[in-house]
Amino acid sequence: MTREKFIDFTKDHIIYLDGATGSNLVKAGMPSGVCPEQWILEHREVMLQLQKEYVQAGTNILYAPTFTANRVKLAEYHLEKNMSSMIHDLVAISKEAAASTPGHPVYVAGDITMTGEQLRPMGKMELEDLIAIYKEQILCLVDAGADLLVVETMMSLAETRAALIAAKEVCDLPVIATLTFEADGRTLFGTDAKTAAVVLESLGASAIGANCSTGPAQMEGIISDMVSVTMIPIIAKPNAGLPFLDENGTTCYNMEAEEFTEEMQVLVNAGATILGGCCGTTPEFIRQIHDRFGTETRVTAARRPEDIRYLTSERITHSFGLEDGFFVVGERINPTGKKALQAQLREGNFEKVIQFAEEQETCGAKVLDINMGMSGIDEKLCMLRALEEVSGVTNLPLSLDSSYVEVLEAALRNYPGRALVNSVSLETEKFEKLLPIVAKYGAMFILLPLSDAGLPKDIEEKKEIIHKIYDRALSLGMRKEDIVVDGLVATVGANPKAALETLETIRYCKSNGFATICGLSNISFAMPERGFVNTAFLTLAIQSGLTMAIANPSQEMLMSCALATDLLLNKEEAALRYIEYAGGVKERREEKEAELSRKLALLEQQGTKADSTDNTEVPSAVTASKDTPQINEMQEKL
Amino acid sequence: MTREKFIDFTKDHIIYLDGATGSNLVKAGMPSGVCPEQWILEHREVMLQLQKEYVQAGTNILYAPTFTANRVKLAEYHLEKNMSSMIHDLVAISKEAAASTPGHPVYVAGDITMTGEQLRPMGKMELEDLIAIYKEQILCLVDAGADLLVVETMMSLAETRAALIAAKEVCDLPVIATLTFEADGRTLFGTDAKTAAVVLESLGASAIGANCSTGPAQMEGIISDMVSVTMIPIIAKPNAGLPFLDENGTTCYNMEAEEFTEEMQVLVNAGATILGGCCGTTPEFIRQIHDRFGTETRVTAARRPEDIRYLTSERITHSFGLEDGFFVVGERINPTGKKALQAQLREGNFEKVIQFAEEQETCGAKVLDINMGMSGIDEKLCMLRALEEVSGVTNLPLSLDSSYVEVLEAALRNYPGRALVNSVSLETEKFEKLLPIVAKYGAMFILLPLSDAGLPKDIEEKKEIIHKIYDRALSLGMRKEDIVVDGLVATVGANPKAALETLETIRYCKSNGFATICGLSNISFAMPERGFVNTAFLTLAIQSGLTMAIANPSQEMLMSCALATDLLLNKEEAALRYIEYAGGVKERREEKEAELSRKLALLEQQGTKADSTDNTEVPSAVTASKDTPQINEMQEKL
Ligand SMILES: [Zn+2]
Ligand SMILES: [Zn+2]
Ligand SMILES: [Zn+2]
Repeated sequence: MTREKFIDFTKDHIIYLDGATGSNLVKAGMPSGVCPEQWILEHREVMLQLQKEYVQAGTNILYAPTFTANRVKLAEYHLEKNMSSMIHDLVAISKEAAASTPGHPVYVAGDITMTGEQLRPMGKMELEDLIAIYKEQILCLVDAGADLLVVETMMSLAETRAALIAAKEVCDLPVIATLTFEADGRTLFGTDAKTAAVVLESLGASAIGANCSTGPAQMEGIISDMVSVTMIPIIAKPNAGLPFLDENGTTCYNMEAEEFTEEMQVLVNAGATILGGCCGTTPEFIRQIHDRFGTETRVTAARRPEDIRYLTSERITHSFGLEDGFFVVGERINPTGKKALQAQLREGNFEKVIQFAEEQETCGAKVLDINMGMSGIDEKLCMLRALEEVSGVTNLPLSLDSSYVEVLEAALRNYPGRALVNSVSLETEKFEKLLPIVAKYGAMFILLPLSDAGLPKDIEEKKEIIHKIYDRALSLGMRKEDIVVDGLVATVGANPKAALETLETIRYCKSNGFATICGLSNISFAMPERGFVNTAFLTLAIQSGLTMAIANPSQEMLMSCALATDLLLNKEEAALRYIEYAGGVKERREEKEAELSRKLALLEQQGTKADSTDNTEVPSAVTASKDTPQINEMQEKL
Repeated sequence: MTREKFIDFTKDHIIYLDGATGSNLVKAGMPSGVCPEQWILEHREVMLQLQKEYVQAGTNILYAPTFTANRVKLAEYHLEKNMSSMIHDLVAISKEAAASTPGHPVYVAGDITMTGEQLRPMGKMELEDLIAIYKEQILCLVDAGADLLVVETMMSLAETRAALIAAKEVCDLPVIATLTFEADGRTLFGTDAKTAAVVLESLGASAIGANCSTGPAQMEGIISDMVSVTMIPIIAKPNAGLPFLDENGTTCYNMEAEEFTEEMQVLVNAGATILGGCCGTTPEFIRQIHDRFGTETRVTAARRPEDIRYLTSERITHSFGLEDGFFVVGERINPTGKKALQAQLREGNFEKVIQFAEEQETCGAKVLDINMGMSGIDEKLCMLRALEEVSGVTNLPLSLDSSYVEVLEAALRNYPGRALVNSVSLETEKFEKLLPIVAKYGAMFILLPLSDAGLPKDIEEKKEIIHKIYDRALSLGMRKEDIVVDGLVATVGANPKAALETLETIRYCKSNGFATICGLSNISFAMPERGFVNTAFLTLAIQSGLTMAIANPSQEMLMSCALATDLLLNKEEAALRYIEYAGGVKERREEKEAELSRKLALLEQQGTKADSTDNTEVPSAVTASKDTPQINEMQEKL
């Protein structure tokens, strides 16, 4: 089955998966402690019969019983050498069952799940090893004739990504993926449904969803979240309610087919179009949902808004549209010009990196840029380490920033979310090599309108570069929403039209549906009190439609004025955001002023006669931030 | 002669005045110490002969010998009772001379000059008394049949204004006016040529210029300055070079008619079209310039640019166009909410008023708003006193701000420059009464788009109000450039579209050629850290085309960001202005930080063990203004 075929097959159709395998095999006598794949091969008829019943019940996609047929799991039973032939035989069962009802087409999905070994940094498994393990299993599945692949019951988004990357690198089959969520709406590893959906769709999954986890009703939020951020079909394969142990100590589920079917309505309403059952469900369940929901979809749930973009970490999603609030990509994790940070990185010490990550999140950055470009270190290793360290202390999505394609490729492969790549230009290396890599990993990228010839000589050349890169991105399967155009800020001291040119670029991009980003500090180079120039520039840029800036979010004036600009432009929730942020500024300022007054009072009280300066000047010591009307008013009243 | 006739008469023509009277009468035997008017009447033939010669030489406008025929001067000779008949007889001489050459039309100008008594606050003369004195003289001149009036050899702009106001209130004759300038290009009272020209043209003078002062060549800057800021004809009536005493102790002038005529070429080139001579010149001078320059003007010198507006004090002019740098009207001289200022004003103490004026000028305000609206004082008296006091310490033009038409009328009458009136709305009192008064005194005004019904309900109603007031201003002889539209800022906390609506108004006004002004503090009412909101709003407003804001210029962030905005928008000289201002901010900040560090170091050195706080926090005491990249960088390097 090709990916295009999968799209046709699922378009406007409700597709039925199968129900439980494991719980039915246990009922059929499979003891605990055995290798399920081995047991199935020894009880081929049991499995064949079950799958035939699913097909008769209406299943369109049968999951081959290859769930844990991977090198790691099979090794627990010393069966790893048999993997290829076992998978061959297991897929053959499903193919036989699929062929049992010639009337309606049934496809066989090669089934993949977690190995049980956790990835670094939680566990010891290296990403490349896991990808290799999945590649082996997938190659066997392809060889055995699987029509598509399903990665299911995943508790780790990173491991799911590994499976998708592996599939992408060894075959062209469509891959569908479902994760298992806890009661809090997150996977065991902390990923929420939107994040999983965004990452897996952008990585090329043909359908995504949830399986196992809970009964249907409790899965509603998960499904509707996934529906709301994607365009691909959403899979709902819940359990038959809640598990309990019967008098024999067997795990049972508390829902019959009727109740299950009744509850599945909420998932259909939420927008799920690929339906099935997990633990505790039987062919009867599939039959009843098939009878109830039929084959034609009537999805009314809203899908991903055209204008909205998503960046994610492994755990959370930052979404934004061109009319939404401005935000900052924190720029501080970058050793350029920071001697102390450079010294630490040379010693493999990531304390400052961690500190900058935490501080920038506290200050309101929504994305963190990670740049490890400096001499005397292995930038690629440092980048991977930084991604790990930063992800350990913040859930913010990251921007992967390097001059080297190799560094960015490694970062993209390892980063377990949907990253922003900083940046792709028309320079040959970036355009030819990097852009396909960005497309492969489903990332968003900053389009830097530069070419091998350097800076564009005018706005027309800038637009040309933007369109050349955009066109190639489209041809690689990307969308306009995957692009953030860098406004390319020059120095107003050297070019008096620097700001006007960048503002024009921003307006052009906004009106053409491109998100935009700007660095700020270039603009004010060599000016005194650069913060004012940066702040005014940012205000103007936001007015012109700037989406985000790469900046130091600990600059209170810059951040406050940016939030005030959103407020003044009447962006959604901007008043709340301003009031919250400025409230914090006020608190810190008042604390500082009080502390200072206390110290100065103490000084005075100690009778420092040696102090020749006029003590009446003391109150003005706090005027370093005397820009609030309150303070001016206070001074006037003095 | 009507004013319209004067316009026709002078349009595209070079008009010739007469030459000296006084120096020729002295030559003819008039002793010093006599009343000149009395001597002339006693030697009627001398005067008649001189004026006939002028007429024969080409003079189109003869000055009647009524120069000091005012109540104050005549009283020195106890002749004040004879003023009316003396003026009658003096004008009759000129009329006879004017009629002596039927071929070309010669008009007689009733001649007026200073009384010798200085106006308050320099002297003891009250403005109303001076106006009354001029009215008497003018009424006599009109009665005697003068065709127009000339106010000449004025060293005081305020006294010139008094004469023009007097003329306006008792007759419809055209009034032309010339001042006498010192070598530094200013009158004895400190007024420069541009300021004199702006004030007198806006007050309705039919022509203005310079007389006496110097020889022609040294008058070039004066004339070209006047030409450059006006549209009415410019008068040049210089002396015959420099005075010296001959062997008999008689004052003589060092230029013959040929040299004078040669030098007059620079004034003609500079754009003067009404030519004459002052001390030392004779009919021969007039003949030669008449022969050389003929009667047709070929003015190539640039007149007032269509887009440029002028506000002046008595001494300097602030000019601005819609594309020029943004500026601040200082708002602090206003007792609203300022208890200490109120208390002072109740005691007739203007110390704080003076302090605020000086501080605001230092901080970069280009115009100062004067508002004396408070209970318990005579607002009109206070306003007049404030104008005097403030004019004593600053040369900045003033904005006259009151709710009462009567207060504004008095202020306009007394203010010796071209003021901004704050404000005219469509409210009946303002529209019906105030607007004609503003027109009479030639002021610029803030158009507040309000009506008796209150705030306009939408932008359409706002535009309607603007156009109603504009139309009436036009019908009163004003121009679009006399209007500054108030953007009418609401509170964003109450109306989330408040900023957007004002920005739209500003854009509308800019694109329709209206200057704009905004208050800032309304926008941020009830928000925390309002300075950020005000600053962002100002930045956006400047981007939208705001011409000026009424604000407290001691707000460094606000001013810096406003100047940075001009810089970023590539306005003329904006980089210089930003660098100068921000340089000052930097200096003050560094001084404060150094002072603070010194104090805190002292505190630490004194071993304040009682101080339980973490001393490592000390550096952060200076972070109240840590918004400059330098400081952030420094913190990172720590
Ligand atoms: Zn399950
Ligand atoms: Zn294109
Ligand atoms: Zn003279």
